[in-house]
Amino acid sequence: MKLQNFEQVEETSVELPGATGCKMRLLVSDKDGAPTFAMRQFAVEPSGHTPLHSHDYEHEVYVLSGSGIAVEGTVEHPIQRGDVLFVEPNEIHQFKNNGSEPLEFICLIPNSAAGKAVTLAPNGAC
Amino acid sequence: MKLQNFEQVEETSVELPGATGCKMRLLVSDKDGAPTFAMRQFAVEPSGHTPLHSHDYEHEVYVLSGSGIAVEGTVEHPIQRGDVLFVEPNEIHQFKNNGSEPLEFICLIPNSAAGKAVTLAPNGAC
Repeated sequence: MKLQNFEQVEETSVELPGATGCKMRLLVSDKDGAPTFAMRQFAVEPSGHTPLHSHDYEHEVYVLSGSGIAVEGTVEHPIQRGDVLFVEPNEIHQFKNNGSEPLEFICLIPNSAAGKAVTLAPNGAC
Repeated sequence: MKLQNFEQVEETSVELPGATGCKMRLLVSDKDGAPTFAMRQFAVEPSGHTPLHSHDYEHEVYVLSGSGIAVEGTVEHPIQRGDVLFVEPNEIHQFKNNGSEPLEFICLIPNSAAGKAVTLAPNGAC
């Protein structure tokens, strides 16, 4: 068993093109021996966002705190604490913080995502 | 994209031998088309606990609220909001609520866990 608080995990800036004000902590991964999937925690500062992008693997997301927008293609859905999202492989998606507090969520991916490229949507850097 | 609040998901009692005061919501699973892993949310009432048990698949756990104990074999670790656990396959483990508020956490498992039996520890019902 590996046990730690998320605050003990190094936080790094998300440097993908189209990402603004996003930080990530890799909470559980294959480096811990996790055989199937990885857990990451994201913090998006007010007015920040992830890239508008897609990839061939899924996300499972749980919103921990704050509020914002989940973009599904061209549709915007408000999100808040306790919301759960399943983003299918190849769906164009983005997370935006339109609130005044950090938007924090965990986002899990399969181990098979390691090293895969993501595709930025045409307006992915906006 | 599938989006819902956890409160919109049906909550069922965990009826495993050795479980007391445990409820579960299946947030994301293969029924939603999730190809690799499933997300469940558990609520353990004060003085409640999951079974002391093991199985041949992993858990990835994030504590959302409350406080309690994560049992690793015969060792007890205090847990609280923001704690992250990786439970390796075949580790004997249990979650107990020794606080006064519900202990809530999400616990993810690989899809390959579906239908698999769990092994109760000798004192699993205590």
